[in-house]
Amino acid sequence: MNGSLQINMSEILSLSDIRKAAARIQPYLHRTPVMTSQAIDKLSGARCFFKCENFQKVGAFKARGALNAVLSLPDESLKNGVATHSSGNHAAALAMAAQIAKVPAYIVMPGNAPVVKKNAVESYGANITYCEANLQARENGLADIVAKTGAEFIPPFDDDRIICGQATVAMELIEDVKNLDLVIAPVGGGGLLSGTALSTHYLSPNSKVIAAEPEGANDTFNSFSAGKLIPVEDPCTIADGLLTSLSERTFAIIKDYVEQIVTVSDDTIVSATRLIMERMKIVVEPSAAVALAAILEKQLEVSKLRIGIILSGGNIDFDSFYSGKNGV
Amino acid sequence: MNGSLQINMSEILSLSDIRKAAARIQPYLHRTPVMTSQAIDKLSGARCFFKCENFQKVGAFKARGALNAVLSLPDESLKNGVATHSSGNHAAALAMAAQIAKVPAYIVMPGNAPVVKKNAVESYGANITYCEANLQARENGLADIVAKTGAEFIPPFDDDRIICGQATVAMELIEDVKNLDLVIAPVGGGGLLSGTALSTHYLSPNSKVIAAEPEGANDTFNSFSAGKLIPVEDPCTIADGLLTSLSERTFAIIKDYVEQIVTVSDDTIVSATRLIMERMKIVVEPSAAVALAAILEKQLEVSKLRIGIILSGGNIDFDSFYSGKNGV
Repeated sequence: MNGSLQINMSEILSLSDIRKAAARIQPYLHRTPVMTSQAIDKLSGARCFFKCENFQKVGAFKARGALNAVLSLPDESLKNGVATHSSGNHAAALAMAAQIAKVPAYIVMPGNAPVVKKNAVESYGANITYCEANLQARENGLADIVAKTGAEFIPPFDDDRIICGQATVAMELIEDVKNLDLVIAPVGGGGLLSGTALSTHYLSPNSKVIAAEPEGANDTFNSFSAGKLIPVEDPCTIADGLLTSLSERTFAIIKDYVEQIVTVSDDTIVSATRLIMERMKIVVEPSAAVALAAILEKQLEVSKLRIGIILSGGNIDFDSFYSGKNGV
Repeated sequence: MNGSLQINMSEILSLSDIRKAAARIQPYLHRTPVMTSQAIDKLSGARCFFKCENFQKVGAFKARGALNAVLSLPDESLKNGVATHSSGNHAAALAMAAQIAKVPAYIVMPGNAPVVKKNAVESYGANITYCEANLQARENGLADIVAKTGAEFIPPFDDDRIICGQATVAMELIEDVKNLDLVIAPVGGGGLLSGTALSTHYLSPNSKVIAAEPEGANDTFNSFSAGKLIPVEDPCTIADGLLTSLSERTFAIIKDYVEQIVTVSDDTIVSATRLIMERMKIVVEPSAAVALAAILEKQLEVSKLRIGIILSGGNIDFDSFYSGKNGV
């Protein structure tokens, strides 16, 4: 089963592909605001512009890619619904996209996924199948569902339509904020990061793209350093949206269009999460705070720079986070 | 010591007083956004417009009243600085206002005030004196400070300049959202509520003003019902900004210009706080969620109404709230 589709396999995704994605999804999604914080500017010495995808539908940028993929499908492929395996935001995003397209969604989720993410998927009327918390169980569960229903598999990141959808985040940021020196995005499977790198390359070529990655899931850092894909074996981080490793497709874009990969500790991710919530009064999940964590760890020279920071989502399990069940 | 000043004792505060306050404070404060939530509209059956004072400077509407009071003082009164006793947002607000006016601030705080609020006051460079957590200790501490420094006492709510400052919240809401059927504000000492009632009376006379009050600090409900001021003896609620009782000044406005007082349980306040944070992805303190709690408790007929809801602040102590130390 290889359900990932290609818009354009021979060439890098074009600006036109990204613009088409933007036009396709725009009627259904929020143009999220860009926020600033004097407190964080003071602390960092930089001028930070936060692109707030925590305010996006389903509480994360994943709504963009999933909706672009679903709305790109021909009716014939769409008629039996769509399916995926995901522990989190992609699941809710695909459920929402299916609801918009008025087709069923079949989601395979690990039983230990955060409650807030399970509830979100249910609220969009998706059919959930729970499985064990490992990739093999998830893939087997998905294969069963697809065989039974004929649903179309929509992968979470290894898909050109997904990358084009996620690329619209940086496209909007660049439209709203001029002369950015840096754009920092978190990296898990690389859908958001590769989309960010492409939009920045086309629309703000003088801005450098930096990836922020948890130390406990540092396959992008290792792959980037080695010049070849090196998946991480046993990822472990509080940033539960960034456990996945890159695919060949996302790595191919990242190695050419990303300037640097910065890894950050879970302690700093927790501090950054708290800082954003306490000072900016907005809710973010730890995965979203990883880009600010890269600044807080002072691994980058940011003094007086204009920095676009992508806050990827806001689906935090408050009780786990503040009770210390996630090691906080 | 009676440091509360009067703009206009013989008459009710005028629209011109409120407009002057708005002009005075506007250069230094945020015009906060009005947000909506499809999820909460669906749940309530109403169309809710949230005025987000959690995004205000110091994280609460209190910045408005304190700054208006400080900027209204003649230089002669201001030169020795300003002082107050407060467990929370008014303290930070006065510290910020003093920083803007470049004079010292002396704050008497109970030792058990939330850490996040202590930190905020310190960050504005105020001089803090800690005291025991009762009104007598706070008033004694303040009297000592005022005697020693000659600082001007700026009370948290029993003051016409404070009321005019807080009235600018509803003024902005009404400018941004037309044809509101209801405006709901939380009530503690009544500064925000009386200001809300006046602005609504002048600028949107067809909108009814509803007060939302915790059951455990229900002096406004009791006073409103009895037609005379009845302070609450031992207030107890998770909404730590609403422990105070009305003054004669705020009650005089509230009894004439507020339609109804709705009391809500702490359980519903907690649910409303969580709902706003989980679905709207913004941070609010429990006191700010009391107005939505009044809708969730279904004591009001709100079906299909357009409702302005004042989210008063966002200075929550996450660790206490989610660890259950506050009875959650």
